[in-house]
Amino acid sequence: MGVLKQAYQRSDICIVTGGLGPTRGDITRDVIAGLLDENMQIDPVLKENISGYFARMGLEMPENNLKQAMLIPSAISIPNPLGTAPGWWVEKNGKIIVSLPGPPGEMQPMWQREIYPRLENKGGAVILSRTLKTWGLSEARIDELVGRYMSLPSPTLALYAKADGIHMRITAKASHKNYAAELIREREAELRQILKNNIWGADNDVLEEVTGRLIAGKKLTLAVAESITGGLLSYSLNSHNLENGHFLKGSIIANDSEVRSSLGITEGPGPSEAGLQSAVRMAAIARDKFSADIGMAIDGCTSPDQISGTAKVFIAISMRESEHQFAQAYTWRPHQLVRRSVLHAIFNLRQFLLDMQ
Amino acid sequence: MGVLKQAYQRSDICIVTGGLGPTRGDITRDVIAGLLDENMQIDPVLKENISGYFARMGLEMPENNLKQAMLIPSAISIPNPLGTAPGWWVEKNGKIIVSLPGPPGEMQPMWQREIYPRLENKGGAVILSRTLKTWGLSEARIDELVGRYMSLPSPTLALYAKADGIHMRITAKASHKNYAAELIREREAELRQILKNNIWGADNDVLEEVTGRLIAGKKLTLAVAESITGGLLSYSLNSHNLENGHFLKGSIIANDSEVRSSLGITEGPGPSEAGLQSAVRMAAIARDKFSADIGMAIDGCTSPDQISGTAKVFIAISMRESEHQFAQAYTWRPHQLVRRSVLHAIFNLRQFLLDMQ
Repeated sequence: MGVLKQAYQRSDICIVTGGLGPTRGDITRDVIAGLLDENMQIDPVLKENISGYFARMGLEMPENNLKQAMLIPSAISIPNPLGTAPGWWVEKNGKIIVSLPGPPGEMQPMWQREIYPRLENKGGAVILSRTLKTWGLSEARIDELVGRYMSLPSPTLALYAKADGIHMRITAKASHKNYAAELIREREAELRQILKNNIWGADNDVLEEVTGRLIAGKKLTLAVAESITGGLLSYSLNSHNLENGHFLKGSIIANDSEVRSSLGITEGPGPSEAGLQSAVRMAAIARDKFSADIGMAIDGCTSPDQISGTAKVFIAISMRESEHQFAQAYTWRPHQLVRRSVLHAIFNLRQFLLDMQ
Repeated sequence: MGVLKQAYQRSDICIVTGGLGPTRGDITRDVIAGLLDENMQIDPVLKENISGYFARMGLEMPENNLKQAMLIPSAISIPNPLGTAPGWWVEKNGKIIVSLPGPPGEMQPMWQREIYPRLENKGGAVILSRTLKTWGLSEARIDELVGRYMSLPSPTLALYAKADGIHMRITAKASHKNYAAELIREREAELRQILKNNIWGADNDVLEEVTGRLIAGKKLTLAVAESITGGLLSYSLNSHNLENGHFLKGSIIANDSEVRSSLGITEGPGPSEAGLQSAVRMAAIARDKFSADIGMAIDGCTSPDQISGTAKVFIAISMRESEHQFAQAYTWRPHQLVRRSVLHAIFNLRQFLLDMQ
C-alpha cells in the first residue's frame, strides 16, 4: 500500500503486475480500492466469465475465485483470454492505474492488445525502439565496432548480452512517429553495414523461427541427432516453428554408448579429429533414418579439459547429395555448453542455407 | 546514481546487480565510486585474472575488459568463477554495498558462496524459509486446504504459482536459528499430513532430478518417445540429471506421420481412445528400441477442440514385463500444453516408481 501510494503521488500512470490470484495473499485489488477510497463489488458479467471458464475446463469453481470478479466504480476490467484473473484499467483525478496479472504468458498479450493501444491514444512525444540481434561476436568486440554510436544523444544505442547473442537497441525520441522511425532506419542501415551477417534478426525475431522459415521456404526437411545437448536442439526448433509446416521430420537423442553403436556411430565422442567425424556420421544417420534432406548433429564430451577447464563440441550439417557439408569444433565453458551449442548449431544452419543460394 | 544514493541513505545494506560488463553502458562501478567519493584504480591481481581468462579461452582480451579490473580502496573484489566481471563488497561508515554481475548464472553462485555467508556473519535476528513444492492441485484448491495457516503471524505461509506447480513457502523469524528451524519443522509436518504425495520436493529440489534419482536408485533405465512436446521431455530429464548416471538411454521425437508409421505407430493421434492406445504403443516402441526397462511417451493433438478450446494429451508409461502400465488422457489449454504435459508425465513417472515399492 505504501509503495503504490508513493508511486501514485509522483506519477501520472502506475502499472502494477501480480497479486490478482484467488488466494488471500492476492491483495492488489484491495490496495487500489483502499487507495482510491472506493468499494469493491462483484461484477455479474465477470462472475459469469470466470464460472464459464471453469465449466469449459470441466472443473468446479472454487469459491475463492469469486474475488477475481470484483470491480470498483472507477475501474473497467481488461479481459484475460488465458486465465481467470481479469486486469483493471482505472482512471481517476487525471491519473491512470493499470493492474495486470503476474504470469508473463497472461500479462504480455493483455499489455499488447489492451493497455499499450490505450496509452498510445493518450498522445505526447513518441519514443520508438528497435532491437537488432547478433550472434558470433563478443559484447566487447561489438562495443569496439559500434561503440561510437553509444555516446550519441539520439538515437541512443545500448547493448544487451542475451542468451541468443548480443542485442543492440536503437531508441529515438521525436515529436512524430514517422520522424523517430526515420532516425532509427538510418542508424540501422549503418549498423548493418558494419556487422553484416552477424545480425540475424530484429525485434521479436527468434533465431529458431528465422531459420525454420528459411528451411520451409526452400521446401527442405531436416532431421536431428543430439548427444550432450539432450534434446534442446530438437525442442528449440520444434517449439518455435509450430505453424511452419513439419520441416523437422524427427530426432534421435542418444547418450548411451550401446545406443550409439547400435546406430552405427563407432567413433568418439572425444576431444580429437575423430569427434568431428563422429558428428558428421551422426548427421548423416539422422538424415537417412528420417528420410530428410538435411541432417544436423551436435556431439561432444561433457567432461571439461583438465588444464583449460573448457569442453569441446562438434557441430555437423550434412545434405543428402553430400557435396554440401559443414563441420566445426567449438570450445566452451561447461556451464555454457548446451545453450551455446544449440544456438551455434542453428546459426550455422542459417549460414549454410544462406550460402546455398 | 540518484537511486543508489536514496537506497544508501535509508538502508544499511544495498545490493546492486548488473552494470559490471565491459561496455561504456556499464556504469555501476563508476556510480559507487562517485557516491563514496573514492577513485578507481586497476588492481594488478584482477587484471591478471581477466587476461588469464581470455588466454585460457584462446582469445585476445579486448581493451574494454580492463574496466572489470577496477577497484576502489573501500572495496574488496568477489571472485566470479564463471565470467570476467568480479563483484564488489564495499564496507564504509558502517554500511555495506554489494555489487554483483547481472547474468543469473554468474550472480547466483557468487551470492551463495561469498555474499550470503558474509551477511550471515553480521548477526541479528534470523529469518528462515522453506519451500514445499506440489503438483496436481490448483492454487485455489490448496488455498482451501491450507489457507488457515496463511493468516497466522509466525511461521507465515505464502503460495506461489510456479511452472512446476504450486509452491508453499513457510517463513519463521526467531532469535535463534534452531528455534526458527523448529517452527518450520512443525508447520511442514502439518502441511505434509494434508497434502501427502502431492508434495514432491522442497527448496532446491527439481522434479526431474527427484524422479531421476528414483529411477537411478532402482537401477532401472528409461527410453522416451515424444510428439507434440517436441523434445522438452527428453531435455528436461537430461538437463537435470547430468551427474546421475545414464538412466535415460535414448529418445525419439517424431511428428511426421511418415516417420510415425515407419516406427510402427499406426493409430492416431486423435482425441479418442485410439490416442491412448497410440501413446502406449509409442512407449513400448521406445522401450524396446533403446533396450530400456521403462518406456514413456507423450502424444496428443495440437489443434484445440472447437467448442471447449482445449486440447487432449496422452501420457503412457510401459514396463518391460508389461504387468506395470500407466496411461491417462489430460485436457489443457493449448498454451499450457507442452510444459504441463512434460511435468505431468514426470510426476506420473514418479508416482509409478513409488507405487512399485
